[in-house]
Amino acid sequence: MSDLSYPKSKTNKVNRLGERGKYDCKTVHEIIASSPVLHVSFSPSPEDYPVILPMIGKLGSFENPSADLSEPLDLYLHGYVSSRIMNLARSSSKDPNDGNLKVCVCATKVDGLVLSLTPNSHSMNYRSSVIFGTASLVTDLDEKLYAMKLITDGVLKGRYEKTRVPPDGAEMSSTQILRVSVESASAKVRAGEPGDYEKDLKQEKLLDRVWTGVIPMYTAYGEPQPSKYNRVKEVPEYIANYVKDTGDAERGYALAAITMDEAGTA
Amino acid sequence: MSDLSYPKSKTNKVNRLGERGKYDCKTVHEIIASSPVLHVSFSPSPEDYPVILPMIGKLGSFENPSADLSEPLDLYLHGYVSSRIMNLARSSSKDPNDGNLKVCVCATKVDGLVLSLTPNSHSMNYRSSVIFGTASLVTDLDEKLYAMKLITDGVLKGRYEKTRVPPDGAEMSSTQILRVSVESASAKVRAGEPGDYEKDLKQEKLLDRVWTGVIPMYTAYGEPQPSKYNRVKEVPEYIANYVKDTGDAERGYALAAITMDEAGTA
Repeated sequence: MSDLSYPKSKTNKVNRLGERGKYDCKTVHEIIASSPVLHVSFSPSPEDYPVILPMIGKLGSFENPSADLSEPLDLYLHGYVSSRIMNLARSSSKDPNDGNLKVCVCATKVDGLVLSLTPNSHSMNYRSSVIFGTASLVTDLDEKLYAMKLITDGVLKGRYEKTRVPPDGAEMSSTQILRVSVESASAKVRAGEPGDYEKDLKQEKLLDRVWTGVIPMYTAYGEPQPSKYNRVKEVPEYIANYVKDTGDAERGYALAAITMDEAGTA
Repeated sequence: MSDLSYPKSKTNKVNRLGERGKYDCKTVHEIIASSPVLHVSFSPSPEDYPVILPMIGKLGSFENPSADLSEPLDLYLHGYVSSRIMNLARSSSKDPNDGNLKVCVCATKVDGLVLSLTPNSHSMNYRSSVIFGTASLVTDLDEKLYAMKLITDGVLKGRYEKTRVPPDGAEMSSTQILRVSVESASAKVRAGEPGDYEKDLKQEKLLDRVWTGVIPMYTAYGEPQPSKYNRVKEVPEYIANYVKDTGDAERGYALAAITMDEAGTA
């Protein structure tokens, strides 16, 4: 495991329950990488409400494509060419490669409901990552193709090459890719058993009466359902493997988390 | 089903793929209500990055406690008394009941991966809700207790009364509740089969080669795992029922979504 970490700063520091804060690239990036949807926030103007958009995005490095999740990476987000966030990114800088639309990107995975003796000590097992960075439009065609493949394969490994590629002219121009240069990031992880106050743990009648423990929660995958126009009789192996492996990993983590310590160490 | 809807405005209107936009209270509120974690965004200052916090929150009405999800509701968020968002809400107004911290709250449920013939027509089945409103600290003790019960029971129905309640003085003062007055909201729903372009559906070789369809995705619940200090031998019925009913509902929706039209109509 790499030791590369995001420096702690005012922007990314986990203040509340700081022992749950994680700054190493691998932990921060893995949560983002395994989340099907990311929540992306931007401020249209100081007078407006901040806006959150659910978007699909994946981490990668166009300049160093073999970089893994423990290394510095950019975040590529996929959207429609004339959507509000794309227009803002376009107008926020004269040079579209010089992004200065500030964004915050967050992904959260809930791993379990943690049930304790009192409402206030109830919790959830979870993993969340937050990234702060500046977004700019990807204008280089090679980088755009790189990001399209990264995103498609990031959702379902190996899918890109199995489909009709490369995207044609109309597809290339209707799809816009945003590159977020990551300035700062951190993760917060809660795992383990319930944590009750000593004063409650001494109450015999309370202990006799209240069930305490963890209800594991995880993302599950059902049997792939063919479309009406599908002609491929068997579900291909790379899809069947994805469903099995990802499902097993999600379920496995939720169960393993219960025996970790509160900060998520096995 | 109630017809009460959020008026369309510049703030909440779904521009891209507008046919997926929903404005009725019931649809918008149900997505929020069934999400274990909400993403809450605020802007500390125009110079700073926007911030997203994963928070636990539930919809309710202190003044009209019997209101259901098809009616106008406030959103109650739960947090630590000295956390950044609480401090901002406190300092943003002289009268703490007169909140003017603008927030955006978003919840997204992914119901399936939609695999089509080309990378660009790939999609996800999903339901997302976004709420825009102003946040203020709840200072009235009765309203705070109402919100604590609302949130605990909103996560796991019936749990509050089964535990050691009411919260004691230390618990009341270390926990802060934020009330978000909802100004505007909307939902966006994608369901159904893949949607491929006519030009691709005419390519016989492509149809013979690429598996198309939907991989259902849903939140699953594992067997409740007792804590080390749990003494209640059987998992109580209200917990066992929650695990079964919620799990069935989540899985059921993900499968049902595949046969809905793209905008999520059965």
